[in-house]
Amino acid sequence: MAESRKLRMGLVGGGPGAFIGPVHRIAAELDGRIELVAGAFSSSPEKSRAAGLSYRIDPQRAYGSYEEMIAQEKQRPDAIDFVVIATPNSTHLPVAKAALEAGIPVMSDKPATATYDQVLELEKVVARAGLPYGLTHTYAGYALVRDARALCAAGEIGPVRKVVVEYLQGWLSESIEASGQKQASWRVDPKLNGPGGCIGDIGTHAFHLLEYITGLDVIALQGTLRSVVEGRQVDDDCTALLKLSNGAQGILLASQIAAGEGNGLRIRVYGEKGSLHWQQENPNTLTLRRTAGPDETRHASGGYLSPDARAVTRLPGGHPEGYFEAFAVLYREFAEWLEAWRANKAEAPATLPGIRAAVRGMRFIERAIESSRTGQWVEF
Amino acid sequence: MAESRKLRMGLVGGGPGAFIGPVHRIAAELDGRIELVAGAFSSSPEKSRAAGLSYRIDPQRAYGSYEEMIAQEKQRPDAIDFVVIATPNSTHLPVAKAALEAGIPVMSDKPATATYDQVLELEKVVARAGLPYGLTHTYAGYALVRDARALCAAGEIGPVRKVVVEYLQGWLSESIEASGQKQASWRVDPKLNGPGGCIGDIGTHAFHLLEYITGLDVIALQGTLRSVVEGRQVDDDCTALLKLSNGAQGILLASQIAAGEGNGLRIRVYGEKGSLHWQQENPNTLTLRRTAGPDETRHASGGYLSPDARAVTRLPGGHPEGYFEAFAVLYREFAEWLEAWRANKAEAPATLPGIRAAVRGMRFIERAIESSRTGQWVEF
Amino acid sequence: MAESRKLRMGLVGGGPGAFIGPVHRIAAELDGRIELVAGAFSSSPEKSRAAGLSYRIDPQRAYGSYEEMIAQEKQRPDAIDFVVIATPNSTHLPVAKAALEAGIPVMSDKPATATYDQVLELEKVVARAGLPYGLTHTYAGYALVRDARALCAAGEIGPVRKVVVEYLQGWLSESIEASGQKQASWRVDPKLNGPGGCIGDIGTHAFHLLEYITGLDVIALQGTLRSVVEGRQVDDDCTALLKLSNGAQGILLASQIAAGEGNGLRIRVYGEKGSLHWQQENPNTLTLRRTAGPDETRHASGGYLSPDARAVTRLPGGHPEGYFEAFAVLYREFAEWLEAWRANKAEAPATLPGIRAAVRGMRFIERAIESSRTGQWVEF
Amino acid sequence: MAESRKLRMGLVGGGPGAFIGPVHRIAAELDGRIELVAGAFSSSPEKSRAAGLSYRIDPQRAYGSYEEMIAQEKQRPDAIDFVVIATPNSTHLPVAKAALEAGIPVMSDKPATATYDQVLELEKVVARAGLPYGLTHTYAGYALVRDARALCAAGEIGPVRKVVVEYLQGWLSESIEASGQKQASWRVDPKLNGPGGCIGDIGTHAFHLLEYITGLDVIALQGTLRSVVEGRQVDDDCTALLKLSNGAQGILLASQIAAGEGNGLRIRVYGEKGSLHWQQENPNTLTLRRTAGPDETRHASGGYLSPDARAVTRLPGGHPEGYFEAFAVLYREFAEWLEAWRANKAEAPATLPGIRAAVRGMRFIERAIESSRTGQWVEF
Repeated sequence: MAESRKLRMGLVGGGPGAFIGPVHRIAAELDGRIELVAGAFSSSPEKSRAAGLSYRIDPQRAYGSYEEMIAQEKQRPDAIDFVVIATPNSTHLPVAKAALEAGIPVMSDKPATATYDQVLELEKVVARAGLPYGLTHTYAGYALVRDARALCAAGEIGPVRKVVVEYLQGWLSESIEASGQKQASWRVDPKLNGPGGCIGDIGTHAFHLLEYITGLDVIALQGTLRSVVEGRQVDDDCTALLKLSNGAQGILLASQIAAGEGNGLRIRVYGEKGSLHWQQENPNTLTLRRTAGPDETRHASGGYLSPDARAVTRLPGGHPEGYFEAFAVLYREFAEWLEAWRANKAEAPATLPGIRAAVRGMRFIERAIESSRTGQWVEF
Repeated sequence: MAESRKLRMGLVGGGPGAFIGPVHRIAAELDGRIELVAGAFSSSPEKSRAAGLSYRIDPQRAYGSYEEMIAQEKQRPDAIDFVVIATPNSTHLPVAKAALEAGIPVMSDKPATATYDQVLELEKVVARAGLPYGLTHTYAGYALVRDARALCAAGEIGPVRKVVVEYLQGWLSESIEASGQKQASWRVDPKLNGPGGCIGDIGTHAFHLLEYITGLDVIALQGTLRSVVEGRQVDDDCTALLKLSNGAQGILLASQIAAGEGNGLRIRVYGEKGSLHWQQENPNTLTLRRTAGPDETRHASGGYLSPDARAVTRLPGGHPEGYFEAFAVLYREFAEWLEAWRANKAEAPATLPGIRAAVRGMRFIERAIESSRTGQWVEF
Repeated sequence: MAESRKLRMGLVGGGPGAFIGPVHRIAAELDGRIELVAGAFSSSPEKSRAAGLSYRIDPQRAYGSYEEMIAQEKQRPDAIDFVVIATPNSTHLPVAKAALEAGIPVMSDKPATATYDQVLELEKVVARAGLPYGLTHTYAGYALVRDARALCAAGEIGPVRKVVVEYLQGWLSESIEASGQKQASWRVDPKLNGPGGCIGDIGTHAFHLLEYITGLDVIALQGTLRSVVEGRQVDDDCTALLKLSNGAQGILLASQIAAGEGNGLRIRVYGEKGSLHWQQENPNTLTLRRTAGPDETRHASGGYLSPDARAVTRLPGGHPEGYFEAFAVLYREFAEWLEAWRANKAEAPATLPGIRAAVRGMRFIERAIESSRTGQWVEF
Repeated sequence: MAESRKLRMGLVGGGPGAFIGPVHRIAAELDGRIELVAGAFSSSPEKSRAAGLSYRIDPQRAYGSYEEMIAQEKQRPDAIDFVVIATPNSTHLPVAKAALEAGIPVMSDKPATATYDQVLELEKVVARAGLPYGLTHTYAGYALVRDARALCAAGEIGPVRKVVVEYLQGWLSESIEASGQKQASWRVDPKLNGPGGCIGDIGTHAFHLLEYITGLDVIALQGTLRSVVEGRQVDDDCTALLKLSNGAQGILLASQIAAGEGNGLRIRVYGEKGSLHWQQENPNTLTLRRTAGPDETRHASGGYLSPDARAVTRLPGGHPEGYFEAFAVLYREFAEWLEAWRANKAEAPATLPGIRAAVRGMRFIERAIESSRTGQWVEF
């Protein structure tokens, strides 16, 4: 009986000093349907073993490489059910490919790959394998992001006219890569990260959020990418003007040199009849402002939320849902899908970012770089 | 090697329809050091088994009663390392007693027991057993609550003169117990809950937070407890004026009929030189206002936070830490303590609510009821 | 034709170093129906003349005493239409009496007098004179305070169960009177101020706001007045538990030693169906929270506000109305009343604080002091 | 002695149904140094006379045209000291020219004229006349805008890298001009308003604020102006990417179809070391966020504000300063200048927007329209 055991997860990345690896582990296990049992936590076998101990998994299952993990796990009766990819962008494609070609589903960190060409290849691999592939656009897991999406779809604010989405951070205001800060170092190295810096690291989140909430596609854009900190090899500040599929306009700001900002992801969607306002630093409220009438503040777990939002709420009113919880929503959906897929090849759930989101995200990076290079509008 | 496996947890309570049981499970497992392996999830063996399946544990370890769980687990080589109590208040004492007397440490939901007499008995049981006993005053797990505590201790706002703490909810504004709502029903039944209603359910949280942050003891109080909703047998609205050990004054408000409030726990501490302001609905900021100079807003994970606060932060700046995370901090401390205690009988960590907090909390309920009954100030 | 000229105002107080005198002048003149033409700005004739120059009025009309002003103005064809009292509390009665007995209407700063006995005498003087008398409880002039009052009256939140009103300032956290600060010095001197310190200066504002918004009377209270700063002769910190005429409970906090607070006047009214939340530091929004449904944030000048609120709004949406504007609402109402009273002895408008508010405010101070002295509940 | 009387003001515009005329009157009179004594309130003599009555001025001085007002007032011993222009944009130039050529100083509403060519002519007229000319960019009157300007100048946030300024309103989301709404009708008529719609009405405010606070000039821009509401003849939504004189980037958003917004003027200035955040809907706080350390919230009237900010604060801490008060700061500075200019031809104060601000504002509109037309960057 499928319900009687947890899904087994193998993690690639997440070794000593990592930020996002442990977050994947926590989020995956949050709802009690998944457990971390194996990993290739580092390209150094010693560091991988050390990480395995800190995760308290069976030491035999802390592998020295993802290839080894895949090969060994395939032999076990209690093999991993899926692989999670939490490494720098340049390895996303080879890991995903290896797993999928070995018949193992994949949950991947974003952006999907390092370059647009790579994601087109990945798209083919996913199609060929016919296996679940998910992408952790964390913010899609928030109850009120889902409520905003549902309100847009229901026409609550009328046809969308204008969207302002911004993701502003300040942590790269100085050249901290010069002093070897680990999180900064790979992100500003085009070889590990791909050609997009800020645009890939956080611009894609903003881009995904805009399409996710509005249900509209970006069809053209004009971008301006700057490397503000002297000597930096990738962009650290991005501005893009967007044309949306219904004729509306989008403005997207992403920056890692916005000194003093923490994790300032915010979106405002203006329609003919009103607007929606959400920000990640206060994720448990969504404000609906109308052309007439008082503003409405909607709270996570309000009984009046849309069914999609209520489906991902874990706590009673007023208890703030946090980042891990949102992250974990994606894992829960992934786990549900995986089980349903095993039973009857179920389709991916509409709310879970997958390969289409992967392709569009990489396309966004590639198009923004191109527009910034030429100074012209480009088709999407 | 102690580090190489997770601690095994047995849960009492948390069966179908429960709110806090699953929260305990998530919080306990969040940091990867604990796993739920057994439970007496319901007093109905069938319901307990069903819950065991939903938790995906070994079906053999979903017991029909806590007595059975303790007896059976004692026989196993992979026995539970501790018991978690997440049942209505009236059973807290017998479960804790049974576990402790069987040599098993305990983590308990608050309030510690149903009555003040019971907690005095529990205090003796804990002393006799010489085992770890923890109490999940969730809010003590927030990074910025710990920062506030550290700032008070460091004299940053000078000697405390006035404290206003409030915990306002609106969910019992109507007699929802009349229609059998499960969360409401046991809370308003003195037999299951003890004589204090709102004062025990949330007043104790406010009380604990006041003493926890200020480092001061309540030495006298005058309380007014009301049952505002007609026919309700316990208080649903409480006000208390407090005398603190340094001569300062406290005002404590707790209500479950504050219509429109979600989970409004807020504290303001006024000293000679400034004040501290924190609220649970926006838990990732702490405001320090001084008699002169701009207000300071301190953010979770700021590098400038006190060491105690930084020790419990899991995420980089701007990523909101949530309720589960705070809860999980207590479990992590408990787990660390448990291991250290096994190794060398280590003392309880100062930051973890334990049996002293248990006694004081029950004393608070008992004193508030007494003062409200007589209309007089009472010694604490 | 009455509309063709402005009303002429004579100001008592408001000399060099004064805070509230100039505020009266600005507020009075804001709506273009009143002009300051005369004054007894100081008990020193030289200072009064200097103030007259700074106000740019006719130097002949800057008098050395209020008695002189009244006597001289009575002789002029363009005599003042009313007197404004903006002096320390101890002179409120003699000035008001002199003006009213000379047939001149009065607008007075609050509290109405220095003691409860004095206001009872004033009440008789007002009755005998049959002239307009107004009291500047500034906060009653805010559009959203009037909206809250209208929503309560309309039953929007159901019968009131609980009210929390607080007025917290920090500016007297230190003994600034010791260094001769003018605003502090008279306020802490019982001879100039009366026996109530903080309770009279700002507690009365909180008290008035509670009765004004809810439409309920306080019928009993228990107060605790403290002089926290060493050597201070009047209270600087007050707490009162109130019984309201419908059986509801009120909690009133007023403090001038709440270090770090600016001008923290806030009120929350909880009814059976929802609650209202307003604060003076963000006066242009009123939040309505219901037991079910999203929160509603109402903005000054929203077309959806109650008629009473719309009547006192001067600006389009989003332009914040300020303190002066609120103050000026009262003057406008007073001016309208004055003209209507001249024409046909019109009754005072229900929305303008008048002699009843004066009496109740002084009663509140007197009762709070009494309760604090005895430690007992007192009838109101 | 100049101090002994108020300055006399003549108002052009401000007749029945006007919004901004009465605001000018209130702001001008707020500080007690100016009084409205004459006006050409409407191009209809009857309406002008009616307005004169409502303003309670001498009926003789409510003129039928500005030409008549200027001619008549010149004959009086108590002639007006200056003219205020509060009419639709197309008449700003002729009125200003007539007044200045008659030797009368001018305070004008913004934008300075209807077109860029007109403001170049005005610039010559002002130079020839050698008379004071002021422009009411209201937002420059806020204490905390001045504080932000002073902090930038003092290098508190380091060299500026990025500025985001937005002015979002929703009141033209529907075609309310179709139903004859007076405020809308002239604004969307190019003949009365000039070619810029939203860009002129509010875009200029955002533009002025950016240059005012940062002390930087815009040197190039790329703008996108849209007419979103069908049939509208001027722009109602604007986006501009700006190059600033030090190489920094600016993003300017202005919209009158941002449904649900009230008066959303907000600015964020990011420097190398930190950032400044201000918004007009909460004008009494300024937030300073640094790359390290807690955020600082600065309050109007804080003793720690910059001298420029303290100079324009009228109230003690926590009392919100409002829109009228800010407006009145400009009048006070204008009045001071006017008197100093009469005495010794004093230079215009640096903090008061004047003819340079007038020219730059009109240039901005003209350049934005040009860039939007061509789709290219344009020099400023």
